[in-house]
Amino acid sequence: MNDGPGTAHGDAADADADAAAGGSTDGSPRAAEGTDVEPVPIAFGDDGLVPAVAQDAETGEVLMLAYASPTALERTLETGRAHYYSRSRAELWEKGATSGHTQTVRDVRVDCDGDALLYVVDQAGGACHTGYESCFHRIVEGTATSVSDDTDAGDGGRDEEEPREAGLSVAVRTDGQRAFDPDEVY
Amino acid sequence: MNDGPGTAHGDAADADADAAAGGSTDGSPRAAEGTDVEPVPIAFGDDGLVPAVAQDAETGEVLMLAYASPTALERTLETGRAHYYSRSRAELWEKGATSGHTQTVRDVRVDCDGDALLYVVDQAGGACHTGYESCFHRIVEGTATSVSDDTDAGDGGRDEEEPREAGLSVAVRTDGQRAFDPDEVY
Repeated sequence: MNDGPGTAHGDAADADADAAAGGSTDGSPRAAEGTDVEPVPIAFGDDGLVPAVAQDAETGEVLMLAYASPTALERTLETGRAHYYSRSRAELWEKGATSGHTQTVRDVRVDCDGDALLYVVDQAGGACHTGYESCFHRIVEGTATSVSDDTDAGDGGRDEEEPREAGLSVAVRTDGQRAFDPDEVY
Repeated sequence: MNDGPGTAHGDAADADADAAAGGSTDGSPRAAEGTDVEPVPIAFGDDGLVPAVAQDAETGEVLMLAYASPTALERTLETGRAHYYSRSRAELWEKGATSGHTQTVRDVRVDCDGDALLYVVDQAGGACHTGYESCFHRIVEGTATSVSDDTDAGDGGRDEEEPREAGLSVAVRTDGQRAFDPDEVY
């Protein structure tokens, strides 16, 4: 996992960076100011998706983790609005299309392996459908507890209902404030 | 995807919260101060893993995205050191065991669906094996470019080498400073 990207930062990548900078045709100031521009292939997984983390540009809060398809990434870059791929609904999804809680994307960042994205966004309303600013509003308390079946796993939106070999449950404490009332939005 | 967790925040969850708070046996102050403690099953995927995002507790910077197995999550909670599961090496992995760039975990957060984790950490050295503080040190410039094959995808550590139906490449500009020299560490 760590060998490929290390190699990509070597001499070959420097040559690519020169070509990419010289080949800019839109004359955008952002492209011009880059001193280390290089092409990076996105390593979509077997399911055709990469995880995409959304972070609030103002507060730094990690808002949510979802998944991006090639089309979702293209639309995000083209429109400046965060798009994802909904695994449960099996469709392209513009964040906020239903709730109005859109994400205006300041930056899309790609990690060292090219297999994860970070959307740095201005979040309208709250990111979480439960009404909280962040989907990560629950803090684990103590250690985990093994559970032997998942019939009450609360993951109703998941694709398959097969029991897992090993299950874990954690106790959580809710942190933060609701940004909106979900009953009024959904 | 969004229906299950919404239900879990209803009356049944309130009853669970009372039971969990009353059932605390370690007398820890953190458990006692929680007013909304409830058990949450972790929804590990078909591969037995959940994505785990690491965020710097001091700066708020998103450092990396990796994956946690049940054992990795247990060890993280028990030791206070971030553990992950390496998909490429197919083994449990304590961050920093090789490099010394450990992550001391302040909080483990779980998202609304229970299928993603956030480790809030104090990062020793830099998180990225390339020497940068964050693995997300590259910002996408412009839009994406479709590529028809991935023979040079730079994802040498991935498990399979099958071509993908659709590939995307993005131009990136590197942001941030190296925190260490990878040649001296690895």
